[in-house]
Amino acid sequence: MSAHIHAQNKTTEMERNVLLIEEQGSFAVGGKRIVKDGNFDLTNPLQPDGQTYHGDHAYVFYQVPPKARKYPLFFLHGAGQSKKTWETTADGREGFQNIFLRKGFGVYLLDQPRRGEAGRSTVEETIKATPDEQFWFTQFRIGNYPDYFPNVQFPKDEASLAQFYRQMTPNTGAFDGKVITDAVSQLFDKIGEGILVTHSQGGGPGWFTAIKNDKVKAVVAYEPYSSFVFPEGELPEPIQSTGLFGALKGVEIPLSDFEKLTKIPIVVYYGDNIAKEPTQVWNKDHWRSGLEMARLWAKAVNKHGGDATVIHLPEIGIHGNTHFPFSDLNNREVADHLAAWLREKSLD
Amino acid sequence: MSAHIHAQNKTTEMERNVLLIEEQGSFAVGGKRIVKDGNFDLTNPLQPDGQTYHGDHAYVFYQVPPKARKYPLFFLHGAGQSKKTWETTADGREGFQNIFLRKGFGVYLLDQPRRGEAGRSTVEETIKATPDEQFWFTQFRIGNYPDYFPNVQFPKDEASLAQFYRQMTPNTGAFDGKVITDAVSQLFDKIGEGILVTHSQGGGPGWFTAIKNDKVKAVVAYEPYSSFVFPEGELPEPIQSTGLFGALKGVEIPLSDFEKLTKIPIVVYYGDNIAKEPTQVWNKDHWRSGLEMARLWAKAVNKHGGDATVIHLPEIGIHGNTHFPFSDLNNREVADHLAAWLREKSLD
Repeated sequence: MSAHIHAQNKTTEMERNVLLIEEQGSFAVGGKRIVKDGNFDLTNPLQPDGQTYHGDHAYVFYQVPPKARKYPLFFLHGAGQSKKTWETTADGREGFQNIFLRKGFGVYLLDQPRRGEAGRSTVEETIKATPDEQFWFTQFRIGNYPDYFPNVQFPKDEASLAQFYRQMTPNTGAFDGKVITDAVSQLFDKIGEGILVTHSQGGGPGWFTAIKNDKVKAVVAYEPYSSFVFPEGELPEPIQSTGLFGALKGVEIPLSDFEKLTKIPIVVYYGDNIAKEPTQVWNKDHWRSGLEMARLWAKAVNKHGGDATVIHLPEIGIHGNTHFPFSDLNNREVADHLAAWLREKSLD
Repeated sequence: MSAHIHAQNKTTEMERNVLLIEEQGSFAVGGKRIVKDGNFDLTNPLQPDGQTYHGDHAYVFYQVPPKARKYPLFFLHGAGQSKKTWETTADGREGFQNIFLRKGFGVYLLDQPRRGEAGRSTVEETIKATPDEQFWFTQFRIGNYPDYFPNVQFPKDEASLAQFYRQMTPNTGAFDGKVITDAVSQLFDKIGEGILVTHSQGGGPGWFTAIKNDKVKAVVAYEPYSSFVFPEGELPEPIQSTGLFGALKGVEIPLSDFEKLTKIPIVVYYGDNIAKEPTQVWNKDHWRSGLEMARLWAKAVNKHGGDATVIHLPEIGIHGNTHFPFSDLNNREVADHLAAWLREKSLD
């Protein structure tokens, strides 16, 4: 008991003061190796014949505090993002990287294959500079551009918004859930058991990684949208939506795969300003369909003996969150909720 | 004196033990903002009309130890690389990020504009998956593929080589020295005085940043090749080479700009296996031309009253270095030499 109190005091001290890092570094994990037919000619070395190309790996930056908790956290970003998602917030506060380090967790931040510092892709891509930020402002539920939602937990100064836009970074090859799943699974093989934290589009590879690799001891998904998986024969009807991606469909997978998701605790979080009923306001309705599908999915997991919880933050008194609850103005409160959930599930 | 000894002891302890971080985080700096003509239509939000696009910024991850030394180090990578250059080495040892943190320096690692996590580019780019790694093995002087140089300070196992290849990441927009210089200069404006450490292609923007911004208090350049600047009328003859980029030319700039480089200490390092005389071995000859041009350049800087030093590592007894001395097997020795130079110049 006294050791427990001592440990708590240390955590509190660390939350206020200097970060202690037992080990930090970076590496590539997963990926493919292509070899071009022919022989490499040292006198004609810009010819690809006989040369290799390594691509489709993930990049990982990790930090482990002294006396780290049992399970590290593995963070997988969403569409158009990189590991920056989990770092400093747009207005310069600490993100989940620092917050959970201070709570004593090892943290592993990924750039998924074909993104950020994991940019070597085995498939060709053309990147265009298409102005699209007012779309993202709205899609990510900061507000309905140019209006901010009245209660939004997002800073309203121009500099913060510019930082938020600049944290986007493009695909250097087409998004491929299987390529990402393979790399994330190999990360668990390399490091060992841990907790997978996903955001948005990362949710899909998150489910498939947990199915593929039993070293995933829990999944925490912030605002997943697509790729909710159901056992064959149990797919719900598509959920109609005025969102830009139209009706939301589930994904059918073999029951034996689905059952893997019933072996671990899973929590799914959604923020605020999501419609309760169908509406013509496309961003609010897009996320309504996501939240509804998440609830059908959790019901299916639990019907099969699993432990999946969907938390709509406003329902527990946490208001104003965007599509990025972990970097919103109240991200410490959001982090504390996750920490309490991890404790409740004996995962800390 | 006793305080000095105490500080030294603390450094030694930190070198062996836990990293102490007073502050760490990330942000975007510099860049442009494009606005598409027209009005944003909330009901047609995938139309670019009236929307904005932020791009051409640098991404920066920084860590500052407690009681940091006066000048932080700003690290700018070379061609095809990202900030990963300065992190964990291919064989899993600590890179300059950790080594200089442990020596008490704040470290700022950049992904230059249009690279890595700073991927939003204002110009379009097509990225191809062209096998080219045997070229890079040779160009970067690990050896003449498939042979390693006999004395090379590079690990010879397959896994390390794969990690080295996987740390490459492509341009998401054309390389543009001015765009990079602008972002790096704005980083100095934001953070304040510091020391700029460049690698290879980063050398060019390095010189121009030092010319543009007097908060650059010193430049450390590892194996710069192109963009050696000379005052108008003092350009040397191009240096012929059998290297793949042919003859190496200097760049003429106004004398008033050049003189900015004479106001700060500069050190330039080159590794091993560079030819002493012209040769048909193209990689050795490529870097021979770079080293020769560097020496002409340093002579010009010093003739104008500056303090530029070119160090060819084998000449001071440090053998076997590749194009990446800071991550080679002997990178602690390479770091210690830099630390001693910083001390000699009263920059630590």
